[in-house]
Amino acid sequence: MDAYLDKITWNPEGLVPVIAQDCQSGLVLMMAWMNAEALALTVEEGRAVYWSRSRQKLWRKGEQSGHVQQIEEIRLDCDSDVIILQVEQVGGIACHTGRKSCFYRVLKDGQWQTVDSVVKDPGEIYL
Amino acid sequence: MDAYLDKITWNPEGLVPVIAQDCQSGLVLMMAWMNAEALALTVEEGRAVYWSRSRQKLWRKGEQSGHVQQIEEIRLDCDSDVIILQVEQVGGIACHTGRKSCFYRVLKDGQWQTVDSVVKDPGEIYL
Repeated sequence: MDAYLDKITWNPEGLVPVIAQDCQSGLVLMMAWMNAEALALTVEEGRAVYWSRSRQKLWRKGEQSGHVQQIEEIRLDCDSDVIILQVEQVGGIACHTGRKSCFYRVLKDGQWQTVDSVVKDPGEIYL
Repeated sequence: MDAYLDKITWNPEGLVPVIAQDCQSGLVLMMAWMNAEALALTVEEGRAVYWSRSRQKLWRKGEQSGHVQQIEEIRLDCDSDVIILQVEQVGGIACHTGRKSCFYRVLKDGQWQTVDSVVKDPGEIYL
């Protein structure tokens, strides 16, 4: 049943990097990590479940914020060591800063400049 | 001059994961890694220069294939540990298998199924 998990080249920590892309806009929302359990749960539940490296525990994206990522498609790369999710981003916000995407800073004139605005104040998201 | 490099949270190996996205189609092409030198060269040369973990050397994307990635934009995520490049993919092929993108396999019915076709035979790319 879980043969697809064995096809993945997990890193020494048993993790794989996972890109989440908005299936409608094509905006790349974030990159996080999954272990085999997180990927299996993602498939089973149809929502993104990551492995939080900082907290060392499963992280059901949106469990606090409500900003769940519904899975539309899961792809694997040629080296079998990177996954990309096509997701429907509930609430239109993926970043803990209240922005659509985590990639809101652009390198300009030798500096990382914030170019995307906050959609919703984090204080209103994480009550 | 290189203060932007110091803002990045490099992993213990001194690397950061880098996503390359086609700036026109929005297709996510690949994920690879950069060290500080690779990123500095990417900025300097205006083309993607990665760090090959397998070969442990700088990898100027397209040096063999001609499939250079011209940089349109470089973004950093909220945790400062993932970069995304908006690129113009020369030749329209990012993957060493001769496909547009490295993410050509979809999880369907518990298996990774190849859904994208080869644009150009690798034998004709890597002479």
